[in-house]
This record gives sequence, structure tokens and C-alpha cells, in this order.
Amino acid sequence: MPEFLQLLPPTDALAVLLNSLPVMIPPVEEVNTNQALGRVTGGAVVSPEPLPAFSRSTVDGYAVRARDIFGASETLPVYLSLAGEVPMGGVPAFSLSAGQAALIHTGGMLPEGADAVIMIEHTQVARPGAVEALRAVAPGENELRSGEAVAAGPIVLFAGTCLGPAEIGGLMALGLTRIPVVTRPRVAILSSGDEVIEPEQTPRPGQVRDINSYTLSALVEQHGGCPQRYGIIPDRREALEQVLRRALGECDVVIITAGSSASTRDLTAEVIDTLGPPGVLVHGVNVKPGKPTILAVCQDLAGGSAKPVIGLPGNPVSALVIAGLFVVPVVERLLGVNPNRPRPLVPARLSVNLPSQAGREDWIPVKLVKNAAGYTAEPIFYKSNLIFTLAQADGMLLIPPDATGLEAGAVVEVFIL
Amino acid sequence: MPEFLQLLPPTDALAVLLNSLPVMIPPVEEVNTNQALGRVTGGAVVSPEPLPAFSRSTVDGYAVRARDIFGASETLPVYLSLAGEVPMGGVPAFSLSAGQAALIHTGGMLPEGADAVIMIEHTQVARPGAVEALRAVAPGENELRSGEAVAAGPIVLFAGTCLGPAEIGGLMALGLTRIPVVTRPRVAILSSGDEVIEPEQTPRPGQVRDINSYTLSALVEQHGGCPQRYGIIPDRREALEQVLRRALGECDVVIITAGSSASTRDLTAEVIDTLGPPGVLVHGVNVKPGKPTILAVCQDLAGGSAKPVIGLPGNPVSALVIAGLFVVPVVERLLGVNPNRPRPLVPARLSVNLPSQAGREDWIPVKLVKNAAGYTAEPIFYKSNLIFTLAQADGMLLIPPDATGLEAGAVVEVFIL
Repeated sequence: MPEFLQLLPPTDALAVLLNSLPVMIPPVEEVNTNQALGRVTGGAVVSPEPLPAFSRSTVDGYAVRARDIFGASETLPVYLSLAGEVPMGGVPAFSLSAGQAALIHTGGMLPEGADAVIMIEHTQVARPGAVEALRAVAPGENELRSGEAVAAGPIVLFAGTCLGPAEIGGLMALGLTRIPVVTRPRVAILSSGDEVIEPEQTPRPGQVRDINSYTLSALVEQHGGCPQRYGIIPDRREALEQVLRRALGECDVVIITAGSSASTRDLTAEVIDTLGPPGVLVHGVNVKPGKPTILAVCQDLAGGSAKPVIGLPGNPVSALVIAGLFVVPVVERLLGVNPNRPRPLVPARLSVNLPSQAGREDWIPVKLVKNAAGYTAEPIFYKSNLIFTLAQADGMLLIPPDATGLEAGAVVEVFIL
Repeated sequence: MPEFLQLLPPTDALAVLLNSLPVMIPPVEEVNTNQALGRVTGGAVVSPEPLPAFSRSTVDGYAVRARDIFGASETLPVYLSLAGEVPMGGVPAFSLSAGQAALIHTGGMLPEGADAVIMIEHTQVARPGAVEALRAVAPGENELRSGEAVAAGPIVLFAGTCLGPAEIGGLMALGLTRIPVVTRPRVAILSSGDEVIEPEQTPRPGQVRDINSYTLSALVEQHGGCPQRYGIIPDRREALEQVLRRALGECDVVIITAGSSASTRDLTAEVIDTLGPPGVLVHGVNVKPGKPTILAVCQDLAGGSAKPVIGLPGNPVSALVIAGLFVVPVVERLLGVNPNRPRPLVPARLSVNLPSQAGREDWIPVKLVKNAAGYTAEPIFYKSNLIFTLAQADGMLLIPPDATGLEAGAVVEVFIL
């Protein structure tokens, strides 16, 4: 498919790619829960036991039988005799009879017979061994009953949940110290270009250091994938095909930055198309920067399953922006993460008029400047190829395809890098 | 300082804590740039060389002398003779004389004599060895001059910059394959409570598994700190003091979850106050959940510097919310990160009326439900101590202290967990 015959909007292009991927259950591995931060659950997690395992007080106060202090008030307190104090971490050695109360601390176990807790602030010590209740409590008040947080049996975390601090804490509360998580998808990263050299080398005139292998590795890592760098491939058909084929066999996704010139981009698309069916699905996307994007799905001819192959522009700014639009959703799809979860942003006022071509999606790097009312978004204008433009930016601003630009003062949504 | 004599607003309480910390230069270590994702620069990074190192074309086209094609148009093209093709990754073996052009690809080095590039779309091959320019170009057009992206010498990244994909790419472009970053602050995490046991143990009646050690470790790790767990400490003065003192000597920050009941919280505050001057600065913050928060700065009596010591509520939900308000800013301060950088959020419409006590800051866990217009924020109501409440929430909603609640339909800002 030659370049730019048909320019799809990014959303449509992504749908074409994702819809062409086989539906598969992600491979799963078991890890220690305390090392699972940022991993994704490989299946639904079911509670093995009720939480809490026993009826606990949620306040400091006195365990009571609610019916004993029905109608109690400041002017008409109810006297209760003290049955004892509930030990933390143990079972009360007594049970409550009619007219009795027991001193209890937050988290303590309710003694047998008690069905509520009155807060210490609503009581008064009458004399040693007795306490006055100054108000009534409903049965169950200030008590967390056994299984009230989580019953035994139901799903507490769905498959595809990204594990943050709260999820890890919940698993620990249930004694689940090992957890099945989705194996990180291996993402092959290839750089191409005869002028590109390794960063540790000193460029001769005409040469530049590889940027894309490292920006893309970091992006993949940030989003839960496992980057595998295949180095810099010369712009020759045989070399490209050989390394692409190896990467397709060894990894779950293949990304190649497809050289800067039209001829090397066309060569890349041609070679990708020979890797396996169905081949190149999209060549050219209606987005700036990043028009010369290649989206393909190729079946590994050695017998593997069909895998996404993405050709990114050689320009490092374009490559990183486009990877955010296509590589990140592919990695999340392979992880089984919900694609519709909310994307946080920073609302800001635009500092200048921004023109844009109707029908095209534009992504503009912006700096956010704090002011009394919130933030001002100041676009960073740049010539091609300046990765430090993105390093200086706080986020990216989207001009949607149905706009012909945005006016100064408009409220815009900035997606943080 | 006994509990709750004076309740400070969270912002004021944080200011008291941060202003009592000594001003110090964070310790720095050098790491491989390709392993520096998420690390923070330990000093300003200065460009060792200009970027690009040579004048490059930003398009596919012909390198020209701009003055040769001044006035060229479709109707009045200027004929140029072809001096050659610029090789990718090398120096052109020729220079341009008057009336000459050279075929050049994106990223190619401009030959000597050339001062602009005309895009291939604006040219026409007249006959072998000659090309027609169909429009004029300005000097410097479609060219990135040597040093135009980054000159040698200036600062390209400030100290305290968090390294993301773009920053890592920029460092690689300059050949900076090693980078000084701030050493991760060690954050001691202590759990207390006689009823608390390790997650791998089976609780007897009255016992619960430790949650806080693990939620807080994950939070600290997420924000660039290095969590050091000191395990579960019994609620006894000597034991608390001994472990707190050891943690203060070994780590940069100490966090202790201070038991659930008022008596154990008071004990924790008393022990913290004996660790070293100035001691407890804040005991009780006007926020829900998390009122019984202890903020202290203690000088290690063994001769170390003054370090923050934070006593969090024992309730796992409160502990995690409060850690976001106090522990995260402290870790960021020790990393040297800009405290005023934008915090991304998701705007949403509130689904129900939410009451709140005037003068108090309330944090409410919410679920975000997508609809045609954006998101609806549905508060999750919960009893005490339910860590799965936070696991089910997409984010937290703030009711500011000057509000007495929020109305259904109000547009609110949800901070993603």
C-alpha cells in the first residue's frame, strides 16, 4: 500500500488495527503481591474469606446491646454495668448480658451478645464499674460486621485491573501474598536509518545518535510493556526483512521507526507487507505530527499468531507522539486493560490563536504556566526533529479534526506527558 | 502535644512540616540513562555539544542557494543543474556553486554553499541532470542549522526534572549515556497495633492482617522513594521508641501508622516527641478522613540531621489518603521536584448531593462513569477501614473547606488514584 493514498483519522486507524488483532487470553504469571505495583491482574480475584473475619468496632467506646439503651439521652441516661475491656488482637473472655457494656477500642472484636458500639464521647463514667449511655444507638451502629466489607466468594478485583497501592493493600488484607498478573508484552523496538549511530558513539559529520530506540523503550516501560531493543538497522531490504522477521518471531509487538525520507518509509512499508498476512492495513494517518505512520498485523510465518507491527515516523517528536496514539493502546490491549478508563488532564486557557487544518488532528506541545485562575497553556513552536521540545513541554494539546484552530483564551484540555 | 487541641487545615499543616525541614542538597548518584525512567535529575544538565552537529534538511527535496531561485514560480521556474545526491550519514563530496542544486533526503547534511532546501513537491525534473524550482525559498528554509536545536553550553534540563521518554531521548541525542540523579529517599514504614499480623499469617479471632505497610510502600515507590519496611511494632512505649529510633537513624523519612484507638495514637505522639528536637509540630488535621495525623521533625540524636516523622491514622483508607497529602510532598521535596507542577485530573459531574462540614477538607472516593457528555462522579459511601473502597474507586474528590457540601450536577475535579 503506497504512502498517503488514503489518510484515516487516528481513531479510525487505531480501530482498524485493534479489530484485526486476534482475540486471545493474555499469558499469566504469578508474582509476589508486594512486588506487583503497576502490574495487571491476569484473572478475576475472588475473596477466599470474609473481611472482616469478625465483628469489629469502628470507634473507641463501649460495646452494648442496642436495645438496652433505647431512648437514652443526656437528660435521661441509661446506666450500664461494666463487663470488662476487650483486648486488642484477642477474643473477649466474657459475653454481654442485659444491662452490660464493655470498653472497646477501634478495631476491637465485639463480645458475644453485643450488637452495637456507643462512642466514648456519648458516655460518662458514673462510678467504677459502671457507665452512663447519653444517647441511643441503632443495632449495628459503629460496628463492621463479619463479611460486611467483603463476603467470602465474590470477585474483589476484575481481570485487567492495574494494581495500585489500594489494590495491593486489599490483596494483603485477604492474605493473597501471591497474585497472577498478565505477563508483560515484549515489544521489539527497531531503529532504521543509515545516518543513525548508537548514543555512546561520537557522530561523524552527517551522522546523528539514535533517539527513538530510547524514547520508545521508556514509553513502553511506562505503560507496562517489556521493551526489547534490536538496535539500528541499515535501510536495505534484506537487512530490514531479516531483523523484522526475527523480532516478529521473538516478541508480541514490533515497532520500527521507518527512516526520515519518503523512500525509506516506502521501503519499510514494503518489507512489513512481506512479513505475513494480512500485512499493512494503514499507511498514512490524518494527524500532525505523524502522517507517515504504518499500521500492520502480520502472522509470523514460522507458525505464530498474528501480531501488530507499527512503523513510526523517523522524526523523534513524531515517533513519540504517534507511539502514544498507537503503541500505548496496543500494549494496553495485550495487557487486557480497560481501554475506556478516564485519562487525566489539566484544564488551561490557551495563550495564543492556534491555526489548524480542518479534518486533521493536531497535537501541539505546550508549557503550563500557573496563574491565579489556574493554568495558561503556551504552545511550544518548533522546527522538525527537536526532542528537547517535548522535554520542555508539560503536556500535549489536541486540536480536534472538526476545528480549524483554537482561539486565544479558549479553555483547552492538556494531556500531561 | 495532645491530640486535637488545634486542628490545622491540611495545606497549613504541610507548610509547617516542610518549613521545619532543613534546606539541603539532595545526594546524587550516577545511573545509565536508559535505566533512568522516572528518576529525577540531580543537577542541571548542560549540553556538551551543539544539536544538530551539522546543518540538516528537514524535508525531502533539493539543497539550493536561496538567492539562485529568488522569484521562481510555477509560471516562471528557475532551472538548476544537479551537482549530486547527498548520502545519508555522510558528508557530501561536492559543494554548490551558483545555479546548482543537490538532491537531499530528510536528515541529510547540507552541502557547502547551500543555505536552504526546496521541497521535492515544489520542483520538477526538467531533464537528466537538471531540475526546475517552481517557487522561491528563504535562506534557512527547511533547514535545521547546526546548534539551532541546542547550542553547546546552555542548560537543557534543570535540576529536579523527572526523566520521562522525551528527556531520556534528549540526553541520548547529546551522547549523555550516564546521568546524575537524586538518590531515592529511604522511607521507613512501621505498622503498629497489637491486633495486626503479617499478611502471610492466618488471623486468629480478633486479629487482622497488616495492610498499611504495603499500601504505603507502594505509594512511596510510585513517587520515587525507596520503602523500607520495619514490620509490625507492638503498642508499647519501649518497643515503639526502639524501632522508631533505629528507623530515624537509617532512613530519610519515618512513617508510622499509629494504631486505631485514641490511646495508642497518643502513645505514638508521645514517643515521637522524645526522638529528637523539634518533635511533634502538628497533631490533628482538619481533614476527613485522617483527623488524627501527627507531623513531626526529629533530629537523630546520634548526630544526624533533622528528618520528617509522620504518624498516620491506623485506618487503611485514612492512612492512604493522608499519605497522599503529606508523605508524597515530603518525598518530592527530598527529591527536589517542583511542588507546583500541574496535577492532572478528570472533570466530572457529581451524581448526588454531598454534605460536608464547613471548615473541613473532605476527600471522597468516587467511581467515574462515562456518558455522552463526559464523566459522572459517583461517590462511594463506606464504613471505616474498607481498603477495597479505594480499590473500587477511580479517584478522589475534594470538597474544599469553604464549602458546606456540593450539589448534584456540579462540575467537580477528580484526582485519579
